[in-house]
Formats: sequence, C-alpha cells, structure tokens
Amino acid sequence: MYELGVVYRNISRTDAPTADALAKFGSATVHEAMGRVGLLKPYMRPIYAGAQVSGTAVTVLLHPGDNWMMHVVAEQIRPGDIVVAAITAECTDGYFGDLLATSFQARGARALVIDAGVRDVKTLAEMKFPVWSRAISSKGTIKATLGSVNIPVVCAGAWVTPGDVIVADDDGVVCVPRAMAARTLEAAAAREANEGEKRARLASGVLGLDMYKMREPLEKAGLRYID
Amino acid sequence: MYELGVVYRNISRTDAPTADALAKFGSATVHEAMGRVGLLKPYMRPIYAGAQVSGTAVTVLLHPGDNWMMHVVAEQIRPGDIVVAAITAECTDGYFGDLLATSFQARGARALVIDAGVRDVKTLAEMKFPVWSRAISSKGTIKATLGSVNIPVVCAGAWVTPGDVIVADDDGVVCVPRAMAARTLEAAAAREANEGEKRARLASGVLGLDMYKMREPLEKAGLRYID
Amino acid sequence: MYELGVVYRNISRTDAPTADALAKFGSATVHEAMGRVGLLKPYMRPIYAGAQVSGTAVTVLLHPGDNWMMHVVAEQIRPGDIVVAAITAECTDGYFGDLLATSFQARGARALVIDAGVRDVKTLAEMKFPVWSRAISSKGTIKATLGSVNIPVVCAGAWVTPGDVIVADDDGVVCVPRAMAARTLEAAAAREANEGEKRARLASGVLGLDMYKMREPLEKAGLRYID
Amino acid sequence: MYELGVVYRNISRTDAPTADALAKFGSATVHEAMGRVGLLKPYMRPIYAGAQVSGTAVTVLLHPGDNWMMHVVAEQIRPGDIVVAAITAECTDGYFGDLLATSFQARGARALVIDAGVRDVKTLAEMKFPVWSRAISSKGTIKATLGSVNIPVVCAGAWVTPGDVIVADDDGVVCVPRAMAARTLEAAAAREANEGEKRARLASGVLGLDMYKMREPLEKAGLRYID
Amino acid sequence: MYELGVVYRNISRTDAPTADALAKFGSATVHEAMGRVGLLKPYMRPIYAGAQVSGTAVTVLLHPGDNWMMHVVAEQIRPGDIVVAAITAECTDGYFGDLLATSFQARGARALVIDAGVRDVKTLAEMKFPVWSRAISSKGTIKATLGSVNIPVVCAGAWVTPGDVIVADDDGVVCVPRAMAARTLEAAAAREANEGEKRARLASGVLGLDMYKMREPLEKAGLRYID
Amino acid sequence: MYELGVVYRNISRTDAPTADALAKFGSATVHEAMGRVGLLKPYMRPIYAGAQVSGTAVTVLLHPGDNWMMHVVAEQIRPGDIVVAAITAECTDGYFGDLLATSFQARGARALVIDAGVRDVKTLAEMKFPVWSRAISSKGTIKATLGSVNIPVVCAGAWVTPGDVIVADDDGVVCVPRAMAARTLEAAAAREANEGEKRARLASGVLGLDMYKMREPLEKAGLRYID
Repeated sequence: MYELGVVYRNISRTDAPTADALAKFGSATVHEAMGRVGLLKPYMRPIYAGAQVSGTAVTVLLHPGDNWMMHVVAEQIRPGDIVVAAITAECTDGYFGDLLATSFQARGARALVIDAGVRDVKTLAEMKFPVWSRAISSKGTIKATLGSVNIPVVCAGAWVTPGDVIVADDDGVVCVPRAMAARTLEAAAAREANEGEKRARLASGVLGLDMYKMREPLEKAGLRYID
Repeated sequence: MYELGVVYRNISRTDAPTADALAKFGSATVHEAMGRVGLLKPYMRPIYAGAQVSGTAVTVLLHPGDNWMMHVVAEQIRPGDIVVAAITAECTDGYFGDLLATSFQARGARALVIDAGVRDVKTLAEMKFPVWSRAISSKGTIKATLGSVNIPVVCAGAWVTPGDVIVADDDGVVCVPRAMAARTLEAAAAREANEGEKRARLASGVLGLDMYKMREPLEKAGLRYID
Repeated sequence: MYELGVVYRNISRTDAPTADALAKFGSATVHEAMGRVGLLKPYMRPIYAGAQVSGTAVTVLLHPGDNWMMHVVAEQIRPGDIVVAAITAECTDGYFGDLLATSFQARGARALVIDAGVRDVKTLAEMKFPVWSRAISSKGTIKATLGSVNIPVVCAGAWVTPGDVIVADDDGVVCVPRAMAARTLEAAAAREANEGEKRARLASGVLGLDMYKMREPLEKAGLRYID
Repeated sequence: MYELGVVYRNISRTDAPTADALAKFGSATVHEAMGRVGLLKPYMRPIYAGAQVSGTAVTVLLHPGDNWMMHVVAEQIRPGDIVVAAITAECTDGYFGDLLATSFQARGARALVIDAGVRDVKTLAEMKFPVWSRAISSKGTIKATLGSVNIPVVCAGAWVTPGDVIVADDDGVVCVPRAMAARTLEAAAAREANEGEKRARLASGVLGLDMYKMREPLEKAGLRYID
Repeated sequence: MYELGVVYRNISRTDAPTADALAKFGSATVHEAMGRVGLLKPYMRPIYAGAQVSGTAVTVLLHPGDNWMMHVVAEQIRPGDIVVAAITAECTDGYFGDLLATSFQARGARALVIDAGVRDVKTLAEMKFPVWSRAISSKGTIKATLGSVNIPVVCAGAWVTPGDVIVADDDGVVCVPRAMAARTLEAAAAREANEGEKRARLASGVLGLDMYKMREPLEKAGLRYID
Repeated sequence: MYELGVVYRNISRTDAPTADALAKFGSATVHEAMGRVGLLKPYMRPIYAGAQVSGTAVTVLLHPGDNWMMHVVAEQIRPGDIVVAAITAECTDGYFGDLLATSFQARGARALVIDAGVRDVKTLAEMKFPVWSRAISSKGTIKATLGSVNIPVVCAGAWVTPGDVIVADDDGVVCVPRAMAARTLEAAAAREANEGEKRARLASGVLGLDMYKMREPLEKAGLRYID
C-alpha cells in the first residue's frame, strides 16, 4: 500500500554484477527463468527499437498529470539504476522529456520505465536514453502534489520493490526481485546454454516434434492425423 | 466450427504461380480487387516495417497461453506457405520466438500471421522472418492442450481455409480464397494497369475531381460552394 | 455544429511566416506555450518517425467508410496547408493512399492529419508525405455521401477551425487557433530561449530540485526523507 | 480553443419551450432530424436505465483529476439546465458524487453529461439525478487548477456551446446547436408523425421492403435471390 | 469468403425441437458441451438482463454505417429464427431500432445478435425483443450498399452458417453448427443431469477438492501447504 | 513477486469488527479516508447493481484459462472473507459460476473480486452472491496448472495482501491494508460525520463555493467572471 510524501534514501540494491549480467538474456528468457512471472503488461512499449538493458530499480509514485516527484527521484539515482514510475490512476500525459532525460543520464540512469506517457521521443532516441512507456504524448504536467520515492509500487500490473532488477528489450519489461536475482541469472544462463545447438538442429530441418520428443505425448493426448 | 485434436495432412493449396504473384500488389489493392472484403482486422501489425509477402495458408488453432500445436503445424509447412494461427479466446502471450522461426524458415515458411503475441522480435527482424501479430509480448506459453492443424479458422475476424492465399504488407493482411485467387490476380493487375498514368496526371496538378469526373455527381448530390 | 454539403472556398489562414515558424518548436513546446491546451488525443500517431511540420489547416468532414470529400478538399489546398480530416463516427478504414498523396503533394500540402486510417504507408514514407492517423488499414472506402470542406471540425478531440496552425511531430499533434498564433510563437520562443543553458547545467549534474528551487516548496508540502 | 480561468455569466440559452420539447423524441430521432450529426461518442452511458431528458447546456472545462470548477459551474446553473463537463485530457476519475448532485439539483439542473467518471451512483439513482458518463469510479479528485465555465467545449467528440440543447436517453447523448433547435424540433416531430402507422403496418407483417419501396432499387443495385 | 449482393432463400435449418431445446441450458453449458468452442467474443452483451433464448440463425452481412440489408433479411425470417448480423469492418452505429424490431418480431424472430450498435433500447426492452450487441448508439445508418443474406459470416469472432443454432443469455452467445446440434443437446443434458446433486453437496459444505478428487493430482503437481 | 504452487493456511486477518464496519462507508469514502489510494482499476464492475460489502481478503493467483486453484482457495475461506483472484496475464474467461459460488457461499465468503471473467451471472444474482469482475463470459477454463493461495497479489492494478480489508460497491473496489484498517475506519467515520448537515445546506441552495469558502482561493488563482 502506498505511503505518500516520503523518500527512502537507502535501498538495498541487487549487486551490480548480477543486475548487469541479466541484460544479455533479454526479458523473455529472464521471465521464463523465473517461472513465467514478473512481466509488466505488454502495452509497455519501447519508444525506439533495439535497446536492451538491465539495472536496479529506483521507484517513484506519481499522481495523474503531475510530474513533480520526477525531480525528487532524480537525486536518488545511482549509476546503473533504472527508474520505474507508477501513477495512482491511468494517465497518458507526457511526464518526461529531454531535460529530465539529460538529468537522469547525468546521474547514471540507464532507462526509464513509466506507466504513462513521455515526450521529446526523437531527442530521447538521439540521446540513446531508452524508455518503455504506455504512451507517447505532448501533454504537459503540473507540479502540485506529493507522491513518494523508493516505496514498492505496482507498475503496469507488476509489483516492483526498490532494488529489484529490471530487464527490458523490444519484447517487453520484466522485474526480477532482489532475492531471486542470482538464481534467475543462473537459470537464464542454463536456458541459453544449448540454444545454439537447438537452433542449428532446427535450421537443418529437424522438427521440434522430434527434438523435444513430442510425438508420443501428442498421440496420448489423442491427436489424430487425417490424410 | 472447430474440430479439435486433428491434423489434416492433405490440403488443396492455391497454385504457386498465382499465390506468388499476388504479393507485389499488396494487401490494399488485393482487397479492393476482391470487392472490398477478406481483410483481417487492422490491429494486426507487422513486427518490422517493409516486408511484403504472399503465400498459401496452413492454419493452426491454439488455446490461450498454449503453443503446443505450433510444433505440430511446423511439420505441415511446405515451401511457399504462410502459417495462420488463430486462438480460441483473446490472448496476447508470446507464442512464437526465434527457435520456432528458425524451424518454420527451414521448412520453407514465408511468414507467420498470428492473432496473439510473439517475442524475440529483434532476432526475427534480423532473420528477416516477417510476422503480423496483435501484440508483442515476452510472456511464455505452455504445451498442454490439443488444438488442430489445417482446419478452417477465424483469424482476426477473417475466415481462412487452408490453401487460401495470404497477402500481407505494412498496410495489413488479406486472405484470398483459393477459388477466387486467379480472378483476384487478374482484377488486381487490371487495377494497377493505369495507376502509373493516374499518378503522373495527379502529380502534374490535375485534380481527382476532374480525372474521375466527380464534379457532376457531387453537384447532383447537392454540394454547394460558398465564397 | 456540422453543416453538411458545403465547401468554403475562402478561409482566413494564419499568416505564413507565423505558421511556418512554429514547426521547429514541436508539438510539446507549442502546447505548453498555449497554456497546455489544444492537443489532439495521443492515439494520433505518425505513420513514420522523424517528420516535424507546421502549416495552415484546411479541414474536411467525412462519413464512416466514405472518402469522397477527400477529392473535394484537394482542390482547396494551397501551398503550406495541412489537411485535417474528421469523421462523423469512429472508423479505422483506409481513407487515403499514394494517389491522393500525390495529388495533395502536387497542390502543396505538407501533411495529413486524419482521425481514421490510411494505407500505402510504405509508399507515403518513400514520398516523404507525413501523415498522423489513428490507424493503418488496407480497408477501402466508397464515394457516396456528402460531407463538408473548411467548416470547423472536432478532430481526435480537438476543435480545429480552417486557417488555424497545425504543429505535428513524433510526440503528437497540436492545433493553434489563428488568433493565438503570433503570441504562441513568442511564448514558444521564450520557453526555448534558455533551454540550452538548462540542458548544460543538468548534464553537468545539477539537479532540477536545485535549478528550479523546488526543495522549499516540497518541504512545505510535507515531503519527508527517510534514511 | 480553450480560454482558461474564465466564467461567462451571461449565455444565450435556447428558449425553454423548444429545449424542453425535444426530450420526448429521444437522442436517436433528434440526431436524425439534424442530418445525422451532433452525437457524443457511444462510450457515454447513463448510470441508470430509463432516464430521458433535455435541457440547455451550461459547460465546464476541467483538468484531469481536478473537480474544482464543478463548484464554480454550480452557481451558473438555472432551472432547466444540463451541465456538460469536458476534461483537457482523458480521465476516468470520479469528479461528481451525491453532494454535488444535491447542489446541482437544488439549483435546478436536470442532468450531468461528463467525459470522465462519477461516483455515489447508487445514491444518484435514488435521487433520480441522471448522469451520462464515460466511467464510474470511486477515485477522488483534488481542487487545485483553474478551468473555465460556459466556454464552448469538446465533450466526448462533440462541440458544445453554452445554451445549446442537450438531449439524452438510454441510446446516448446529442447536442443541438441553439440556432438549429427550432427547426430540429419541427423535423423531429415530422419524423415521428407517422411512426405509429408504420409500426402498425410492420406489426401486421408488412415488410419494410414493400412499405419503403426498396425492391426496385435493390434490384437495380444488382441484388440476386438464389433458391 | 464473402459473396456480395446475394440472398439465399433456402437454408437448411436445424430441426426446431433441437434448436428450441438448447435454450434452457444456457450459453456456458452449451459451449462446454461442444468442447469449449463456438463462443462469440465477450464484448457481445445483452441490451437488457434476463433474456435466455435459442433459435436457428439467419445471417446478414452489412457494410459499416449501412443497414439496407436489414430490410432484406426481414423477409427471410421464419418463426424460431435469430438474426445474426455481421459487418465488413468495425462499426458501432445503431443499425436497428424499434421499427425493425416490430417487423422482425412480426416475422417470428426471437432475437438479434449484431456485431455493431443498436438503438431504441428502452422500447426494445418493453417489447421484450432481446438483442446482443457490441454497442448501444443513437447513430443512424444509410441505405446505399448491397451486402448479402444467408451466407456464412464471421460475427464477433465466430463462424456462423445459416441454419446453425444460436444460444444466448446474460453470459454471452454461442453458435452450435447444425451438424453438431443433436449431439450437443445430449451432451448438455448429460452435463446438467447431476448438477443438482453437486450443488446440494457443495451447499452442505463439501469441497470441490474432495467431490472432484483433486487432492491427489494437486499434490502430484507439487502443491505445498504452508502453515 | 509470485511464489507458485503454495497455499498459505495461516494468514493474519484484519479483526472482524473493523473489517465489517467499513462496508457502510462505501468504496469512495474509504478510498478518500486512506489518502486517495488503494483503488482497483475502474474496469472492475459489479455483475449486478446494489451490493455493498466489506470483508477480509483471501487471495488466489491463477493462470490464464485455468481455474484449478479456485477449488484450492475455497478450503481456505472463513466466514467474512472476500476472495480476491488475480491472473498472471490478461484474460476474460469465465473462471467462476454458480457451483463454485455455492461452495464459496457455504464456506462463508461474502463476495468474489476477480481480474477476469465470470459466468452464470443470472444465477449468481438470484443467489445474492456479489462479484466484481473485468468481464462476463461463458468461456470455460481448464484445471492444469498450479498457482498459489494467500500470497500477496496485484489485482486490477492494486496490491492486495491476504487479510487486508476489501470494500466494494457500485462505485468500485478498494483494498485497505490491515495495518491501516483501524485508522481508515476512524477517518471514514469522521468524513461522514457532518455529511448530513452539508447535504441539507446544499439542498437548501447554499453553494459549495460559500460552504467550502472557495471564492477567495479561486480569485487568488486568477478566476475572472465575465458578464
């Protein structure tokens, strides 16, 4: 539940080597490695294609149409962080543009994940500051009401605690809880270990039906072939 | 109506020259040539811009969150086919990624059209395996329930029978029934025949009002000009 | 309220230097300069990234699935205009393709803003004719019912009077009423005047909290820091 | 375009006999009588079934999540008015509940039409104070930013000028401009004049095909009957 | 695929006793009895609560904003039929009101299922003519373009062939193909046979876990209880 | 983050007098009393009008299209509980019908809050078992995959911990964390204390502008009245 008007300065970040290492596996593999949970809803889309990042979450809770706390969260960013912004009600306004991105980037932030809109997207792409958002909108915001920084938040349907790892790419965004990060990294690496071999076999024409030995369970389930 | 748990191995594909020739006209012209029917809903979008394909449909019916039958349909693909995947209820999960794409491509598939989500979209773009889908999502699927392969399906609001021609490009996806393919090809070619001339005249400043002789019918319909 | 079946030939366009000068500020800055109003809804998206334009509005009111009036509005275009198309009910059909774009471009139109769908988007991108629309769709339209040209319209939730200035970019679309155009241009220029300096300070690590002197008002509002 | 921070006290209301007389025809007939324009989008739904009203519009422009101006508009209500509330960006918050309804009702308002959410809907139904809204939501609002009262607004896609007539029922909401009200009333009455006779004939089994003499135009259009 | 401009006068209706008997089982049970397929999308909602019907489908294909063919289909209705209306593109206009309902009812139609909007819903409820639709809208339609009657159609994502059985209630709408109707009726009856006993046991406090013997499979699947 | 395959049997429920007492204030007042947080998204709607309940949350996490865990959660229900069901991805299937409702009611459950669909809604209304859901759908589910019972879940955008208080009525659903329940009850009672007096004053024609002393702050904010 949301405590309003507070900024937690000390959060327990996932250790950097683990947080950093998850990026290369991508959101789909990491989500599978966690047991198929932890994804933000698929309406969260990158503002430009091709970015693939991971980092530690610092969180901010905002009110509809009000981006005041974005300036407060900027101070709490450390190099390697990804800012996760939740809103207390649905809103598509443009909470974030090139000036805030300059500030976030100067503080060491790697990306923004926001359950609302952003603007100046052309400049953000030129700056190579990736954002995953639910909307792109020119609509400006005011600075009038307190939210909070570094409290746990629900962002796009996912529960994010400060210090968790965020992994984001063209497929979407996943949140890995700090306590699961090390074992998720291992599981993700294991999943990928023999992907190259599998790909080579499939490319040679071997069927998944045979490679994964599915013919027998399919037959047992009653699958009938008709000529 | 859907028969579950069956795979039809023999389907009557539209002849390859006709199926192949439709690609160059694109989905808009082909849909017009058919009498303005046959389109899948416009929420079906390409995962990357620029692909333009046609091919013969092999179909697969899947359950929400379950991609088991994707491996079954892979075996039924022949070179020149496009896989059309329908789901028994709305779902945005990522049913398809780079491994399945490798397999489909190895079997000769030209594209996937799926009324659900896909993932690994960056890799799919690098592989040049085009997909038209309703969503992009990292969400994985299970392999537990039988669907069917090569039965007629409703995909994104369109009725697709195995062997029909699918035409897809940046504008959308259209399904041409096998029985109409030859005559649709002719009609599409006829539509395009004098497009170059029309374009040249419009580019020179001639108005559609005059080129299409619309002034009289507009006047009859009661259009008034006010200075 | 909508008068049907009329074409106003004489409209009071915003003077060209003002209309042209607004483009470089972009939709977000211009909307802020107007007092945070005038935006079209954020579902209006460019068919390709990177275009940034401004121009004087000529308007057209269309019926669902009927693009007849697009040919009528073509004749009313003057160099520097942007066509703004509204529909009397929600519709995603493809009202506009490469032939109409050729005609619009030949008449001097800079862009189309349409609360419906368009098609031939690959060709439109090659022609560098930018469009902001609610959808992309191959679905064709008929030519049967009269709408109107150059009457005030509601387009994507915004009120647009012929001769107003339209500013559009990757962030969205804003309409500047003719009577406010000069003063909006001034306000936009003022907003941008010290942006470079602000950006430099933020890039150097200065926080918005300090640059905008927010610490005191935040404290007064009751913000608490917890270690 | 929206002027902010102003309240127009003197507006030209449609004369009461005309405004009142439109209610009984309902939104569908009135919209037809106007030439099939003037409707608010169909997402505007009554909070309870069965209410059918008409009245003169007093308008209010609000910001997302802020209902301050609802108290300002209350003072401008005269008996026979319907309040039309527009928001500067999409919002579903609950702007209006039983206390404001008590105040509106005491001032003589007949209904509220709001492009946002309302709450206390059970009490509003008991009070017989009808509301047409885009959402029902418990979410509260703040009182921080000025909007305007009695300026023209875009509400749910329709342009509403203070003093226009609003007609609302279970089918939806229509706005009749003051200048068209008298002639729309006449046209609506004419449409209804022989509805009773038509209904009786249809109830007796006569077909619309014959009653409206459609067989010939259908045949001309090429309709074929197949046995 | 859609053949346009044709009316099939002779269709093979499911026999009346079977079609009529399915009503009492409701859409959920019938859909389960068919193997969990055949449902129209859940956006199809009744215009008033409490109606529960079944009947044989007569179909009509309409164009967006054009209800001409509704008069053509009226003539093809026989007592016990349910009209199923599909549209060639998404549309929420009000295609159907009290006059058409009077005509349909006089011809013996039991209900309308339409993938678009309807109006006069208060009167339709008074007439006890049930409708399942995607929208309620005052928006009128024109009569300009030919569609077809009694061809197979895709309605709200389901394939409906003339003569199939439609079952509709507050839970939704299901289409039972003619060839499956008799065996679906049997299966539905079998499903319901011991529902009363099950309900009594559950009401007495017996758990589904025990009644359905789920404890063992849950344990095998790895479910752990933690005190 | 979601732990799968576990059932927590011992949860710390909010004390019954507090949990029970919150019902009468309704979701809007309770949400205000908490500082305007805690609401589930407004797409959560009651299946019938008029129910107003509160109770302690028992939670269940389900997979798309799979209601197996509904039987597991039934055993954990105690009198006075409300079941809160979350799904790992968006789904509108009908997870719950009259048999499960009979079981839940026999165990003492007061209501179900589910971020998916339900069916048999006519019977549920007759049983007076209230449900708040995102959809109504006949679509059945399978019983194949483990979720969890009594872990914290995100339901319709809100974080719900087992034992929290749920308050639901026609306006929506709010979750009150156990630690805040007592003080929320007090604050809600305080809010309501002088509502009767306020209502009487507003009913007598006093304006909120005067009762809440808004004229001065509005003037300070710059509001201008124009005659």
